[in-house]
Amino acid sequence: MGIKTVYDYVDGHSADFIQDLVRLVKQPSISARGEGIIACAEIVEAMLGDVGFSTKLISTSDEYPVVFGELKSKTGKKTILFYDHYDVQPPEPIEEWKFGAFSGEIHEGIIYGRGVSDNKGNIVSRVKAVESFLKTHGDVPVNVKFVVEGEEEVGSPHLLPMVKNNRSLIANDATIWEFGGTNFEGRPEIYLGLKGVLSVELRTQGATRDVHSANAPLVPNPAWRLIWALNSIKDDQDKVLIDDFYENVKEPSETELRLLVEIPLEEGKIKQALGLKEFLHGKRGNEAKKSLLFSPTCTINGFLTGYVGNGSKTVLPRKAMAKLDFRLVPDQRSSEIFNKLVSHMHQRGFADIEAVQHGSTEPTRTPVTHKFVQIVAEAAEKVYEKKTIIYPTSAASGPMHLFRNLLDSPVVSAGCSHADAKGHAPNENLTIDSFIKGTKFMATILNDFGEN
Amino acid sequence: MGIKTVYDYVDGHSADFIQDLVRLVKQPSISARGEGIIACAEIVEAMLGDVGFSTKLISTSDEYPVVFGELKSKTGKKTILFYDHYDVQPPEPIEEWKFGAFSGEIHEGIIYGRGVSDNKGNIVSRVKAVESFLKTHGDVPVNVKFVVEGEEEVGSPHLLPMVKNNRSLIANDATIWEFGGTNFEGRPEIYLGLKGVLSVELRTQGATRDVHSANAPLVPNPAWRLIWALNSIKDDQDKVLIDDFYENVKEPSETELRLLVEIPLEEGKIKQALGLKEFLHGKRGNEAKKSLLFSPTCTINGFLTGYVGNGSKTVLPRKAMAKLDFRLVPDQRSSEIFNKLVSHMHQRGFADIEAVQHGSTEPTRTPVTHKFVQIVAEAAEKVYEKKTIIYPTSAASGPMHLFRNLLDSPVVSAGCSHADAKGHAPNENLTIDSFIKGTKFMATILNDFGEN
Repeated sequence: MGIKTVYDYVDGHSADFIQDLVRLVKQPSISARGEGIIACAEIVEAMLGDVGFSTKLISTSDEYPVVFGELKSKTGKKTILFYDHYDVQPPEPIEEWKFGAFSGEIHEGIIYGRGVSDNKGNIVSRVKAVESFLKTHGDVPVNVKFVVEGEEEVGSPHLLPMVKNNRSLIANDATIWEFGGTNFEGRPEIYLGLKGVLSVELRTQGATRDVHSANAPLVPNPAWRLIWALNSIKDDQDKVLIDDFYENVKEPSETELRLLVEIPLEEGKIKQALGLKEFLHGKRGNEAKKSLLFSPTCTINGFLTGYVGNGSKTVLPRKAMAKLDFRLVPDQRSSEIFNKLVSHMHQRGFADIEAVQHGSTEPTRTPVTHKFVQIVAEAAEKVYEKKTIIYPTSAASGPMHLFRNLLDSPVVSAGCSHADAKGHAPNENLTIDSFIKGTKFMATILNDFGEN
Repeated sequence: MGIKTVYDYVDGHSADFIQDLVRLVKQPSISARGEGIIACAEIVEAMLGDVGFSTKLISTSDEYPVVFGELKSKTGKKTILFYDHYDVQPPEPIEEWKFGAFSGEIHEGIIYGRGVSDNKGNIVSRVKAVESFLKTHGDVPVNVKFVVEGEEEVGSPHLLPMVKNNRSLIANDATIWEFGGTNFEGRPEIYLGLKGVLSVELRTQGATRDVHSANAPLVPNPAWRLIWALNSIKDDQDKVLIDDFYENVKEPSETELRLLVEIPLEEGKIKQALGLKEFLHGKRGNEAKKSLLFSPTCTINGFLTGYVGNGSKTVLPRKAMAKLDFRLVPDQRSSEIFNKLVSHMHQRGFADIEAVQHGSTEPTRTPVTHKFVQIVAEAAEKVYEKKTIIYPTSAASGPMHLFRNLLDSPVVSAGCSHADAKGHAPNENLTIDSFIKGTKFMATILNDFGEN
């Protein structure tokens, strides 16, 4: 099949594509508070149906259906799956938006709105890539499946049973993950993995009520207990002290390490944006990149005890609570780390501190040497005409492992976003140029995967 | 002078005394939010004036005047000073009150209301003790001064300049402090000292904004910094690790230690009320009492960082804050301990953590062997007909040192409260019997101090 005619179709119909994207952005779909979810799922389903997909809503959780779409190729044998999500982050702080968060307004070639980059632009670009093939060739080079979920921004709590219960329905030969785009120099960036995450809350209680701090010689203070427990978990060099925490950490391969050199880390810009003189422990260059991508971490997300208003209050609090997340790397497992944490607390004399698991995803990576990686990287170079930057993994987390590990599919994250897209922040945006190029990029992947 | 006629006057006029107390309780005077302060000060001033005191409002802080009253004895040379406060704690939680917090309702011989025990009952009982002398003898045995402040419940922030600027006005030979009463067995309890307190806030900052916790390998986490810093301040045996923290701690004298045996610590009742199986580190008996009264402490009052709502949020917080108080014993000084804390933070590598002082009072004690102690203890035994329990110090704190140390006056805390008075809590109350006996107790102190 000739890809040039597909590109021409994309260029010729860009106004329609943009209109469809704006319509999708205008539909709020805030999973954190269940706002507009069904309505948004229905728009996505209709968009797939209009192109010719057979569709259905898969409801492992009634209020947050997964939109599934399937389109068979007449000639191609292979199957590609696009994983996306139609839900978005809450738009707050509203007052910092230049235009309405759900207005979909376009100014100087940029579309503004919550979700336009993460992840609605990607949904539309992928659907339109398929449409462009069908309209120009009457077929697509490969079978295409879509899994578009509605709970990604709240940790995909129902995706595991969905995948387990629909293995054959969503079986595929390769998966394109939800995100990706170009950096400040316009170079395409693709990602071959995600870290895992284990979210835990530690809780402890002293007396049944707050007491006056004059009683400190006699009444246990749960805040101190939690301080000492946390101190036993990580030292001031950020080394996790839980026994065997690093046992299953797989060292990055030589190939993965070589990719680090190519990865741009805009150290100066990042430090300036965050008001930092230097990164943690003075890390820089390859050392910084290596730790960002390949190190497991333990982060305090929150801590609350006692009186935290203005001034002072001589109170000895009755309870204390801390929230932690552990970022995991292959071959750590969230259940393994949770069990090691609980053992640690018991062995170090902190059996009084309760550990509650809030959520988890597993780390996963697709090998750099996998053929599908090469196809995607080269497809990007054809469209963007710059060398692709390959991240052996992102530092972020998500349910990629369900597709990579349970379905044994190679997974590459690649998309239509750009360096200043402001995902999760006010004034999230997508340039029309990125959106259109991203559509061509997806079409090229369909084409090249079909040929290989 | 015969004390019997004074007691008869008290009994004969108890209805009037109660009415005056109820009137004072009905006037809210919540220093924490500046409610009703001036109106309450004026009632106290008028009550003193009605008895014959010359009075004035001393305004080191315009909105919270100190009520000063002075009455000269025709015959006595010595001067006693009563330290009290007309402000009260906020009444919340309102819904837990059986009667209105400012209703002053009387049920079955008990007066209910915020402040009735702490400290309005004491103010009225002391004023009425003087009135009873004047009405029966045309004189009081000693010169009497009152210092009734309006900021005790918020840490007496303006009392130091007041005392410094009015040394001769408030000079005296002995001071009766604001609180005291009888225990569950009806035995009178008096207190010869207070611990000091130093309130500190520790603050630290990482990046200039919260970041996604995926950045944990590169971005410093102020929450961890504060955990490690706090851990360096106190170990899990509750030993303070600041260099020379215990340097100026004076061991209790043999006499003070002997008093411990007499002091009842209702261990079972306290543990049950607080839901504790045992006190901290299994302390009991004299060991528990000794540590309660004579040990300095370091208490976390509050800690806040990051996300503390429901569920999880993968955030790396930009700032963290902890509130601490140190309870101090003679001869520690709050400024000394603050300086040692700051040095500690610098020496242990935590110079990035800012320490802000919120308030302080100094520890102080009057020696058990002082003659005034004996006068007060024996006066109590005459009225209550039970052996007085002498606390070498209370575990609590307050501005007593300003009178004991700056004015070099012996200070004993003794009052009209009772074991179930619920100070600072809902349903604060005072039994009429306690109030009337307490008035006679104060009259007896005036009498006996005049004679000795």
